[in-house]
Amino acid sequence: MTSSVFKRCSGNPMLTPAQVQPHRPDFEVIGVFNAGTAWYQGEIILLLRVAERPVGWEGGDTRIPIFDTETNKLQIKVIDRTDGTYEFSDTRAIRLKSDSPGTFRYLTSFSYLRIARSRDGRHFTVDPNPFLFPNTPFETFGIEDPRVTQIGDTYYITYSAVSPAGVGVGLAITKDFVNVQRQGLILPPENKDVVILPEKIQGKYYILHRPIGKSIGLPEVWIAESDNLFSWGNHRLLFGLREGKWDDGRIGAGAVPIKTKEGWLELYHGASKRNRYCMGAILLDLEEPWKVLARSEHPILEPEAPYEVDGFFGNVVFSCGVIVQDDEVTMYYGVADTSMACATASLKDILSCLS
Amino acid sequence: MTSSVFKRCSGNPMLTPAQVQPHRPDFEVIGVFNAGTAWYQGEIILLLRVAERPVGWEGGDTRIPIFDTETNKLQIKVIDRTDGTYEFSDTRAIRLKSDSPGTFRYLTSFSYLRIARSRDGRHFTVDPNPFLFPNTPFETFGIEDPRVTQIGDTYYITYSAVSPAGVGVGLAITKDFVNVQRQGLILPPENKDVVILPEKIQGKYYILHRPIGKSIGLPEVWIAESDNLFSWGNHRLLFGLREGKWDDGRIGAGAVPIKTKEGWLELYHGASKRNRYCMGAILLDLEEPWKVLARSEHPILEPEAPYEVDGFFGNVVFSCGVIVQDDEVTMYYGVADTSMACATASLKDILSCLS
Repeated sequence: MTSSVFKRCSGNPMLTPAQVQPHRPDFEVIGVFNAGTAWYQGEIILLLRVAERPVGWEGGDTRIPIFDTETNKLQIKVIDRTDGTYEFSDTRAIRLKSDSPGTFRYLTSFSYLRIARSRDGRHFTVDPNPFLFPNTPFETFGIEDPRVTQIGDTYYITYSAVSPAGVGVGLAITKDFVNVQRQGLILPPENKDVVILPEKIQGKYYILHRPIGKSIGLPEVWIAESDNLFSWGNHRLLFGLREGKWDDGRIGAGAVPIKTKEGWLELYHGASKRNRYCMGAILLDLEEPWKVLARSEHPILEPEAPYEVDGFFGNVVFSCGVIVQDDEVTMYYGVADTSMACATASLKDILSCLS
Repeated sequence: MTSSVFKRCSGNPMLTPAQVQPHRPDFEVIGVFNAGTAWYQGEIILLLRVAERPVGWEGGDTRIPIFDTETNKLQIKVIDRTDGTYEFSDTRAIRLKSDSPGTFRYLTSFSYLRIARSRDGRHFTVDPNPFLFPNTPFETFGIEDPRVTQIGDTYYITYSAVSPAGVGVGLAITKDFVNVQRQGLILPPENKDVVILPEKIQGKYYILHRPIGKSIGLPEVWIAESDNLFSWGNHRLLFGLREGKWDDGRIGAGAVPIKTKEGWLELYHGASKRNRYCMGAILLDLEEPWKVLARSEHPILEPEAPYEVDGFFGNVVFSCGVIVQDDEVTMYYGVADTSMACATASLKDILSCLS
């Protein structure tokens, strides 16, 4: 494999769908990926995105789970795969053939958040029940890609809330990873890949986010500020695509930024125009985080291992969180929209590959 | 014409491009429309959207004004109209033929804000110079469709900030309609049609906005809340399209909501799928403005007069502001993306057509 700043952990993939029980017996787990991370009471927490679908999905019908806010239950919508109206070429989503590229009508699986706990950061025990399960009008298609920021004794969880109304950004808070309170949508559609910086800087909180509009604009990373973590303003474009490079298709924040002497170190994902998702790094000014100081020319990790190349949606490494111990960064990352893996690097080595 | 709640003023169109000098002699004014409104020192202010383009645009080239943030000047981009790469069917915007429908690469004109003043609300004097002219990276394609909310002695102006980064929502404030201070983007792309309610309700400010995402979701009206008018959170879908009706294509807030005994009266625009823009009315709960109490079944004004039907972009009535005196509402509105007109109705009559 290409020499990479990050070294893969020996037990990869660390957590696979086969190791996770579905939330009900007539469903199957098809993805355990894109987990947020936290330290809590001496344990490492992975806040997993678990994707499920009804058993028997492989038949002639596509069965789509949708949360129904009137009955507070999952309803199954059945779409005949021979119905010429629909387009099934993307394993993740279903379009109408008449729709524009890049749009979708339904997702093919249903995601929610679930906790896994570990003492050593390698062997995880998955909680038997969901931690955050869709139950609002903005989550009827699912909850995806959490990031966790600890501020004091409170953990702030951002996530993608997906529904026919759009893909918005939900915020939920917990102090114990048992009880959790939703705080509504902190950013309207369409937005995702949101990380909150872990402390106030000159009196303001900062957030990185990735809006994407219909009529003009690219999937790039923005920064905004807040007094209170719930309301956000002063939105500014922070960093963009790089034409002809590995991150010229779409980018988004990955892990919660790491505070270093040199600046805020953000590990972000970048995809090429052909949807190959790599991880890169960027350094933001400590006191003025809307200023970019340096950026990795090459990926710090790219999909090369078999479990990264093949899967539900292949050629993807996608991190939503790291654990830092002294100089060592353990990056937890989703692979091929299927499983979880991890890789380690020293802070020093990551910083030295920025230019 | 169809009987309508609103009666057109006799001097319509009230203000046309021929009555406005361009901001420099090699440009021409092609639109004076979609004005926000305010009372200031006994005068009625129209905050006009003025659209200009370089003289000679009708030739073989399309000349596109773009604000350049490096030189702080307008640069003219020239596109050969015989270049088969581009698509010119929309008078307002230029696409690549390979782009998806509903997207654009350039606008065909360049908009900024300019003030007109009147004692009687019918005869306006246009200021000789621009009031708010693009000068940030988010405004390089122009500033559009202002709404003005007075809170105390301060006027809060929301506007569409258009650039290759997207269509975001800018906020600027003034106390005298001479000096004006930008407050950055209060909502990220893609969003427009933003009105701030004129007072706190149970300790919070409220805003109506119209996000539109790339992958899923419709152009519908949302509500959000704030402690300070600069940062916004708790985004919720407020009201949507109505299939088969006049407002089944796209909707957006129009005038700043009017406080009545029955509730907050919002005059909004709704377009059909064929892009015919009408005005309608909706009533929101006084204490819980995220609750819709009633909505007009039919338009309260629809494009029927010749100056509404024909123009730069025809079949459009589009209001960004009203002036209320006792029971009478004077609605100022842009017609055909070309000129300004006005129409009057009693509050009582507007409220009585809601169901």
